Amino acid sequence: MKSQSKMALPVRSNFKRLFNFIQTLKSSNRLFCAGVGQQKKEPPGGGRMFSGIQPTGVPHLGNYLGALENWVALQIQYPLVLYSIVDMHSITQPQDPNQLRNNILDMAASLLACGIDTERVILFQQSQVSEHAELSWILGCLTSMPRLRHLPQWKMKSKVKTEGSVGLYTYPVLQAADILLYKSTHVPVGEDQVQHLELAQDLARIFNSRYGDLFPVPRTLLSSARKVKSLRDPSAKMSKSDPQKMATIAITDSPDDIALKIRRAVTDLTSEVTFDPETRPGVSNLVTIHAAMAMISVEEAVSQARGLDTGAYKKLVSEAVIQRLTPIRAEIERLRGDPAHLEGVLAQGAQRARGLAAPVLREVRQRVGFC
Amino acid sequence: MKSQSKMALPVRSNFKRLFNFIQTLKSSNRLFCAGVGQQKKEPPGGGRMFSGIQPTGVPHLGNYLGALENWVALQIQYPLVLYSIVDMHSITQPQDPNQLRNNILDMAASLLACGIDTERVILFQQSQVSEHAELSWILGCLTSMPRLRHLPQWKMKSKVKTEGSVGLYTYPVLQAADILLYKSTHVPVGEDQVQHLELAQDLARIFNSRYGDLFPVPRTLLSSARKVKSLRDPSAKMSKSDPQKMATIAITDSPDDIALKIRRAVTDLTSEVTFDPETRPGVSNLVTIHAAMAMISVEEAVSQARGLDTGAYKKLVSEAVIQRLTPIRAEIERLRGDPAHLEGVLAQGAQRARGLAAPVLREVRQRVGFC
Repeated sequence: MKSQSKMALPVRSNFKRLFNFIQTLKSSNRLFCAGVGQQKKEPPGGGRMFSGIQPTGVPHLGNYLGALENWVALQIQYPLVLYSIVDMHSITQPQDPNQLRNNILDMAASLLACGIDTERVILFQQSQVSEHAELSWILGCLTSMPRLRHLPQWKMKSKVKTEGSVGLYTYPVLQAADILLYKSTHVPVGEDQVQHLELAQDLARIFNSRYGDLFPVPRTLLSSARKVKSLRDPSAKMSKSDPQKMATIAITDSPDDIALKIRRAVTDLTSEVTFDPETRPGVSNLVTIHAAMAMISVEEAVSQARGLDTGAYKKLVSEAVIQRLTPIRAEIERLRGDPAHLEGVLAQGAQRARGLAAPVLREVRQRVGFC
Repeated sequence: MKSQSKMALPVRSNFKRLFNFIQTLKSSNRLFCAGVGQQKKEPPGGGRMFSGIQPTGVPHLGNYLGALENWVALQIQYPLVLYSIVDMHSITQPQDPNQLRNNILDMAASLLACGIDTERVILFQQSQVSEHAELSWILGCLTSMPRLRHLPQWKMKSKVKTEGSVGLYTYPVLQAADILLYKSTHVPVGEDQVQHLELAQDLARIFNSRYGDLFPVPRTLLSSARKVKSLRDPSAKMSKSDPQKMATIAITDSPDDIALKIRRAVTDLTSEVTFDPETRPGVSNLVTIHAAMAMISVEEAVSQARGLDTGAYKKLVSEAVIQRLTPIRAEIERLRGDPAHLEGVLAQGAQRARGLAAPVLREVRQRVGFC
């Protein structure tokens, strides 16, 4: 097995470039903090940040640019950062147990390979910290049933199967518990999760007003993350569940696969490269990917494409993607080769998370009257 | 403080009489076991029994004769018996924290004073065993939302407040977790809980079929327990929440209070004592109480009342109640004088319960794919 330091270097250097890039984005207001009914620039320092990601396995380019890059950038901005692989959330939809087990380790490896640094971050698996379920029960007793009826998780996913599970319905309550358990002050989310965060904010207030101040009302860190589109249908988001294999680039795809998928990407009949997501979604999606992966601005990407037709430009995009993903892919492979090490990382994270969660839950239990 | 052995003696001797009495009742088929769509006499020996009681504080006569007497009798009939003070269930309705704390200890003291023997029984407080909430989350992911809509807890209690809580709605899922967590085979319940047990049975089957056999399908021990009525309105059940103080006898009521409440009990204009719950509910309720407390049959009670008018008979009933409750009252008082001891008993029970719950949850987690 290759040594960790050997493989970690390119990732680390990648990470530094990424960080610098995200600092630029921040100053141009791509990340902002939404308080209660207002949006403010986030002041640096202070606070506890929590975020969760479902163990869907190896992330694709959309996940990477939509969430993981953001996680990597945010990890150095708060004194305490918790990132959780939320396996309890994932079983609100049917899961194959072997697949789920693999997905958890794939996600852990991917997060580490993308630059999540366990020196800075408590990275842990949700189900290993029993306090999440315990607090969720208590918060569920403070949540009225109709409050959950119009939240996105239920409206979106219960339509597919006409009768969703109790777990799916109560999902946002567990999410609130995830956040409040660590007295989190900041939670980075996508736009589709804002309503869920509002529930967590409401539950903090309800608990505080009934049992005395305990929980900070967590603030939403809204990230207007780049939306990466399907390579086969640029009107749709890139998605792991896309039945068309050519539509989605996994961050572990081989250089050949990446080159093939980008070569086959749907564009249009104009050969010149421009950035206009409304009228030219296909080629604009490639520009987005190119800019993000090469850590340059969209304008710079378009300027690099000058004189190239889309065919030639696709090669440039491929190169940028391959260059960025190659060390990540190698690191994931290395980490996945040693599952015991990954399990150890998660176990250590869970221990640290429990160390924070236990006294909070103890206080909650005491205030509720359990002891 | 009086020594434990000194006070325990009358309770113990009380318990022996009670046990003999219940054996008689059993042979006349008062307790029976309801399997899936069938009802069978329960064969002695084998199995794990679980039951839970909400911490409503000191029980009244209706609780005592309806459930506790049964618990005392059943504790010697199974190799493993778990009785849980289900505080997590109690918060599905608003609770005052100080009251809840007191109620938990009152209930623990009452159970011990009534004859629950911690040498035979694992007596514990539900919220002290985190595995209940954890398994409940997992089972909630196997329960469809509509499955809970028509269950009694929701239909009865959500009417009072137009919008019940998520906790109230999902209450039967936690109840299923309580039961399955210990691989329970038998669960004594009242008729109003039969549908909840059916959910536990369904969830055992659903889990087993999806993840391989793990849980026994628990059997319902239906107890056609005596229904003790309000002393002020014999058409209603005796209830702690009855606004009329004279309607309910707490098992800690003083002899004077007991005598007064029974003297004021609503009967009718006929002075002769007969047992006819339909046409003479008031006097029949007294006969029921008399027979139960004196551990004699209804026929024997009526025979003892021969020649007495209801006024004189009420004295006889009072004496039987006072004689039976006096040692229990004294023992509750003694136990409540030492909360640290009660907390110790519950902590020890929780430790034993965790010892059983932890490996089952570990196995569940493994099968679900969390590890």
